[in-house]
Amino acid sequence: MTAITMVSDLALDPRTGEVVAAMPVSTPQHLAETVAAAVLATTAVGSVSPAARAGWLEGLANAVAGAVDTLVPTADRETGLGTARLTAEVARCANQLRFYAAVCREGSWLGATIDHATSDTPDLRRVAVPLGPVAVFGASNFPFGFGTLGNDTGSALAAGCPVIVKGHPAHPLTHAALADLAASTLAELGAPAGTFGAVTGLDNGRALVLDDAISAVAFTGSQAAGLSLWSLAQSRPRVIPVFAEMGTVNPVVVTPAAVAQPDALATLAKGSVQSFTLGMGQFCTKPGLLLVPAGAGVAPAVAAELEAASPRGPLLTAGMARSYAEGVRTLQLSGATLVGAVAEPGAGWGVCATVLTAPAARLVPGSPLLAECFGPAILVVEYADDAELTAILDRLQGALVGCVMTAGADDPDAPAVVTSLARFVGRVAVDAWPTGVATTWAQQHGGPWPSTTVPAATSVGAAALARFTRPVAFQNTPPTALPPALADANPWRLPRRVDGRFVPVPGRPGKKRAP
Amino acid sequence: MTAITMVSDLALDPRTGEVVAAMPVSTPQHLAETVAAAVLATTAVGSVSPAARAGWLEGLANAVAGAVDTLVPTADRETGLGTARLTAEVARCANQLRFYAAVCREGSWLGATIDHATSDTPDLRRVAVPLGPVAVFGASNFPFGFGTLGNDTGSALAAGCPVIVKGHPAHPLTHAALADLAASTLAELGAPAGTFGAVTGLDNGRALVLDDAISAVAFTGSQAAGLSLWSLAQSRPRVIPVFAEMGTVNPVVVTPAAVAQPDALATLAKGSVQSFTLGMGQFCTKPGLLLVPAGAGVAPAVAAELEAASPRGPLLTAGMARSYAEGVRTLQLSGATLVGAVAEPGAGWGVCATVLTAPAARLVPGSPLLAECFGPAILVVEYADDAELTAILDRLQGALVGCVMTAGADDPDAPAVVTSLARFVGRVAVDAWPTGVATTWAQQHGGPWPSTTVPAATSVGAAALARFTRPVAFQNTPPTALPPALADANPWRLPRRVDGRFVPVPGRPGKKRAP
Repeated sequence: MTAITMVSDLALDPRTGEVVAAMPVSTPQHLAETVAAAVLATTAVGSVSPAARAGWLEGLANAVAGAVDTLVPTADRETGLGTARLTAEVARCANQLRFYAAVCREGSWLGATIDHATSDTPDLRRVAVPLGPVAVFGASNFPFGFGTLGNDTGSALAAGCPVIVKGHPAHPLTHAALADLAASTLAELGAPAGTFGAVTGLDNGRALVLDDAISAVAFTGSQAAGLSLWSLAQSRPRVIPVFAEMGTVNPVVVTPAAVAQPDALATLAKGSVQSFTLGMGQFCTKPGLLLVPAGAGVAPAVAAELEAASPRGPLLTAGMARSYAEGVRTLQLSGATLVGAVAEPGAGWGVCATVLTAPAARLVPGSPLLAECFGPAILVVEYADDAELTAILDRLQGALVGCVMTAGADDPDAPAVVTSLARFVGRVAVDAWPTGVATTWAQQHGGPWPSTTVPAATSVGAAALARFTRPVAFQNTPPTALPPALADANPWRLPRRVDGRFVPVPGRPGKKRAP
Repeated sequence: MTAITMVSDLALDPRTGEVVAAMPVSTPQHLAETVAAAVLATTAVGSVSPAARAGWLEGLANAVAGAVDTLVPTADRETGLGTARLTAEVARCANQLRFYAAVCREGSWLGATIDHATSDTPDLRRVAVPLGPVAVFGASNFPFGFGTLGNDTGSALAAGCPVIVKGHPAHPLTHAALADLAASTLAELGAPAGTFGAVTGLDNGRALVLDDAISAVAFTGSQAAGLSLWSLAQSRPRVIPVFAEMGTVNPVVVTPAAVAQPDALATLAKGSVQSFTLGMGQFCTKPGLLLVPAGAGVAPAVAAELEAASPRGPLLTAGMARSYAEGVRTLQLSGATLVGAVAEPGAGWGVCATVLTAPAARLVPGSPLLAECFGPAILVVEYADDAELTAILDRLQGALVGCVMTAGADDPDAPAVVTSLARFVGRVAVDAWPTGVATTWAQQHGGPWPSTTVPAATSVGAAALARFTRPVAFQNTPPTALPPALADANPWRLPRRVDGRFVPVPGRPGKKRAP
């Protein structure tokens, strides 16, 4: 953290380093007005029906999708992520917003529960209530999917919380475009002023986290920045939750049977290179550690594939390019050996994608070999047998995702590896690379500490809404004073638990489906 | 926190201050063995079926209920809480254990969710997995309900976590009796060794929180002790959640219409005295602040009722009795005036129950008038009008529970007060005093910071289990490697969400009930 106040976020072209635009950061007055507007909107945003908020989210989805032709060139110019990837990401962003709208409308996330009075117990009714204004710190690496209108913003709005986004300095023009789009769309749809706000500037971000009006923080990004915000929030008189999902070393285990398959080396090499160099390795789910049977020759095959494919592109910022180069050097100083690399970094903030290897014995707690190197690098480590593999897995830190590549459903090693991975990751993927996180009901993106500050939470999937609520029980409360979610008439048509029994809603999916 | 190692927990008679027994605190070796046994039991406890764990909990319930004749005299001797109250609390403890057994068996808490693959998304299946060994710090004031085998232990075992209880020094004999009962009962039922463990000693408690093998902490007690454990857990390399539910000033609002009812003063006086002196005020849900319409004469009526009823009894420890006396003095030094008190404190660690009053203007943030005074004291504050009431409520800290006394279902002020209270409490009770927390599906015991370190969590009710789990998603995972909760055949007969739709289980309550 620096005490220097930035006066502008510079939009820079990662392919050249040139200044595209200088965007002045928010003034203290803008920050204060934005927070005040969110506070004023809190009751209205939290008390309209889920269906009304779902309508706002669908409006945002349509607006984002409709603006693809201007959003993509803007984002490409300041991120260098490429038109194809960014076009797909805009669609993903719109689909996510629609998904959170559907989850919001379905209403299970409210956890509405009614226990009628018995001879021993009073009438008790419980429902999730929104926490209030949420500060969202979007990711550098996904300007749309995890950015200004990404998963955190979508799920917080769905849960009934006003959102203030602190724009990421790696793409200030995209942030401004999305923020303008959101504000005008929500205004057109009749959402209260203050439902969505946006600020920029590092100091304003810190001020948001410390502002008593803010009730929760959502963050996607590096461990250093995430833990810094987390510490800041712990220093408040009223401590608030910080949901930080951070980059980790996501391990991929290859079983002995998998490398014995026909074409195994080529398949593994191709798949791993595609995954760890996707978006130039700028994914929090990037496979950072490939654990392979000893003597199978995986590392040279991956290196050869990398050199043949030679993926090139700039990282998002000069700082990230520098950190990546330092990270690769640190891996080497910690016992890793270079096996292969792309020869030329490409223009601007381009870096050389790299394959390294290290002996299993060097993977000891505290070693940089077990820390994330953000960018297109992978460490390949051979294990001699089951015992060594288990010993390595037991030493790994909590991670977002872990994978196992098998010889198919009957691979005898798959169950044990899945079980081992599940102990320290949020998502286990079988015969799939870790990059790519679907937004569905069953998704879980958060993993054990230190990958996530609240390991039971997820920023992706239907459960993302729960982060921004807390339950309140109403005891012996007359109909006039009950919130709609708990009223006997069930005006919001919510699935509810009544006297311990789940009660689906007529005409809703819960009832349609036979067991 | 002290650096002095206690060699014994002294069981003391609160009615006389005499030593009943000296119980040596756990040795470092016992602590190490207890943690090691919990670690060894983790996989087995977490992977048996919910029905199997429910059987253990029912066995514990039967054992506790069956031992009432020895448990009550033991607890009464060292707590002075009285035979009637303690007998009821043993029954409550057994009923809670049966409730957590039923919730465990029903299985909704696992949140089993299956999304089959689509053209865009992979097969994803999500289920809650137990965190691992949980350290439980039971309450001083509820040796059974929130003690060694109380809500925290019951819900953590139900969720599949081994439990290590740190016995409270206010009732070491009761702790030892319950710990022995639990160990022998669980062994008879075939639960793994290490499913339940017990340690004593302040230093051992701190060591537990810092032990890398411990995955979560549950605490019921004072804010000072709870926040101290919370800070300790934040200092670990792997930070773990601390679910501390702590004493707060629980406000009770009396509406103008309520005091205008026939016999209102007598009813309010009787109800408030019963509630704030119940268990000599040693409840985390004790009403600490009574907000009444100006000029209605509530404070003198409460004082008269208190002096007439003259409830007497010792507090649990000499330290609590001293803190209570200091607390009442602090309230007076902060602007409160004594209105009435029980004249004689009674024997041993008896204290004088007290009614105080203070002008609304003195209830300013940071004032001791807004801090808990543990024990039988209540502060009565008059409000002039709606605006002043709202201003007072806006200044209150997060609390476990808030109440409103009304003139019935049509009281025009009830909805607004309920809404105001719901902003900063975990439970709102109408025409009911705050003491008494039913263990049901809809209960919520945790409230906003600083009453609870994780305000979205509850230590009482069906949702208590969720604290000790985190979700894991399994992507594209073959049947051989899936946990039973996510297998297509649904061997545990769980209610699940499949492709976004809730699927109840044949023969289970979810299906029986028509909407």
